[in-house]
Amino acid sequence: MRGTVLYGPRDIRFEDREDPKIIEPTDAVLRLAATCVCGSDLWPYRGVQPIDSPTPMGHEYCGFVEEVGSAVRSVKPGQFVVGSFATSDNTCPHCRYGYQSSCVHREFMLRAQAPYLRVPQADGTLVATDGGAPPQDLVPSLLAASDVLGTGWFAADAGNVKPGGTVVVVGDGAVGLLGVLSAKQMGAERIIAMSRHEARQKLAREFGATDIVTERGAEGVARIIEMTNGIRADSVLECVGSHESMMQAIESCRPGGYVSYVGVPHDVELKGAALFFTHVHLHGGPAPVRRYLPKLIDLILNGTINPGKVFDLVLPLDKVAEGYRAMDERRAIKALLRP
Amino acid sequence: MRGTVLYGPRDIRFEDREDPKIIEPTDAVLRLAATCVCGSDLWPYRGVQPIDSPTPMGHEYCGFVEEVGSAVRSVKPGQFVVGSFATSDNTCPHCRYGYQSSCVHREFMLRAQAPYLRVPQADGTLVATDGGAPPQDLVPSLLAASDVLGTGWFAADAGNVKPGGTVVVVGDGAVGLLGVLSAKQMGAERIIAMSRHEARQKLAREFGATDIVTERGAEGVARIIEMTNGIRADSVLECVGSHESMMQAIESCRPGGYVSYVGVPHDVELKGAALFFTHVHLHGGPAPVRRYLPKLIDLILNGTINPGKVFDLVLPLDKVAEGYRAMDERRAIKALLRP
Repeated sequence: MRGTVLYGPRDIRFEDREDPKIIEPTDAVLRLAATCVCGSDLWPYRGVQPIDSPTPMGHEYCGFVEEVGSAVRSVKPGQFVVGSFATSDNTCPHCRYGYQSSCVHREFMLRAQAPYLRVPQADGTLVATDGGAPPQDLVPSLLAASDVLGTGWFAADAGNVKPGGTVVVVGDGAVGLLGVLSAKQMGAERIIAMSRHEARQKLAREFGATDIVTERGAEGVARIIEMTNGIRADSVLECVGSHESMMQAIESCRPGGYVSYVGVPHDVELKGAALFFTHVHLHGGPAPVRRYLPKLIDLILNGTINPGKVFDLVLPLDKVAEGYRAMDERRAIKALLRP
Repeated sequence: MRGTVLYGPRDIRFEDREDPKIIEPTDAVLRLAATCVCGSDLWPYRGVQPIDSPTPMGHEYCGFVEEVGSAVRSVKPGQFVVGSFATSDNTCPHCRYGYQSSCVHREFMLRAQAPYLRVPQADGTLVATDGGAPPQDLVPSLLAASDVLGTGWFAADAGNVKPGGTVVVVGDGAVGLLGVLSAKQMGAERIIAMSRHEARQKLAREFGATDIVTERGAEGVARIIEMTNGIRADSVLECVGSHESMMQAIESCRPGGYVSYVGVPHDVELKGAALFFTHVHLHGGPAPVRRYLPKLIDLILNGTINPGKVFDLVLPLDKVAEGYRAMDERRAIKALLRP
């Protein structure tokens, strides 16, 4: 088969790669219905996070089980499944505690921008949809559950979003937008999206944002303080991963409030003393998507949420390089790739 | 009156200071039954946190109301009161949210190592004991509630200590020891105190520690991993404030677990990416002691807890310099001063 490989800054190739096959008895091989480009793929794409050698790309996926190893019990060939970007056995102490993305058997998926994918720990990683193949129009939303929706949901959960609360979302990428959607589902009364990009503002409003703030950094914080009568927000979801956005998030949060951070931090350094006096709760990390998958799949299949709207560009898989370019240049929020 | 003033590194003097008096109508003046030296007083005493000019010292106190301002309603002359090291109006949004130590009217108390003390925001800061003057033998415990007990309690609360949980306490100062006591009160099943000091180990056991670990840093973390079958602790209470102890706390905590930090951080810098992958919850700050005072006073007066045991040195107030010396040299856990 052919798959996506990053060779260096802005050098994405779609080229021959070995066909995935069962290696461990706990593996499955999937034939993907869809895959996509992640905001986090842009870090190595831009050279901010350098790579040592040509690197297969992609960690978001859904599709049909093609083959399973001899030890796999909970999924079988022909089923439509969604899996997390992090594998998990779903039985170890960290999994049982709800942190499947810290599973003792965790592997970060790496080769999903391809037509076929090997998934380790298939029983603990994949969740099958009830009733066979889903309608085509729900595939983008199910794909979103694999990472961006699960990550936005974790951001809202780790940010302790509660009915009636005031939430600030820093970052208007797909994760931030789905953080807005998640906060809305959790009953937030006021959801302030930080965005200066018209198409994203529009989608944020559609997902439940009640206010848009275009200012950033200290000016953004000042706006939040003003809008909340000096109190600041109950929950702040940091969905970027830069030092500036993290500090903006922390400073937008009330004492005793909750800051979640779900974008891999790239240059973030927190001074203990400054953090101490903000009095915020801080929680984040790679989202334990597997914890949320059954619920998210239900919400999608019953039509409650439509997270697939974050895909504003659909390309055939072999045009993956254009997907990266469009996201890099912020012409697209998120690119879906059809094998 | 005479009171305590720090002139520079290890230069504590007990000298003439102005008598405190009512300045604002919301003030009270107390005649103190007891005051003490705090671990945090040792930072400026040692010159680690330099001072600009001679600085009156002390922020822990309990005693009798001598006089109140015209606007004070909830306490009156003659009552025995305990107050937090941070003043609060107890009515602002931060106070109502439970973070009185971030009150919009917060002042950090500074002049309590003296026979008399002016307390701003008396209504919101002070809590009177029921039934008049408490028995003399309970005064040390009531004094502890003013800071070290309240801070240890906040450490356990912010560390999400739950019945059945495994708790690690980093730091064997008075706050750490009272973190042990608090974790025990909250139902922790296993409480591991990190201490290499015999007298403190003994008190930790008395307060409820089930295990003592003498190793520090990476070796301390390795011991915790070994003792918890590789899982690490549900809750870790960081009660020191150094970078080493903070990292030890974070690395001793399970993914999804809770790290609290209550010692003012002095050289702590957290790398965002490393913190991200630990998956811990992080919460701390100046303890909102006022939130806990009514409950803590009850637990003391009804004999459930005896936090006053942390005072292993009692001195007349004018010997305050010896109290600092004994704590600095770790000859004493905590020095109580009698005016």
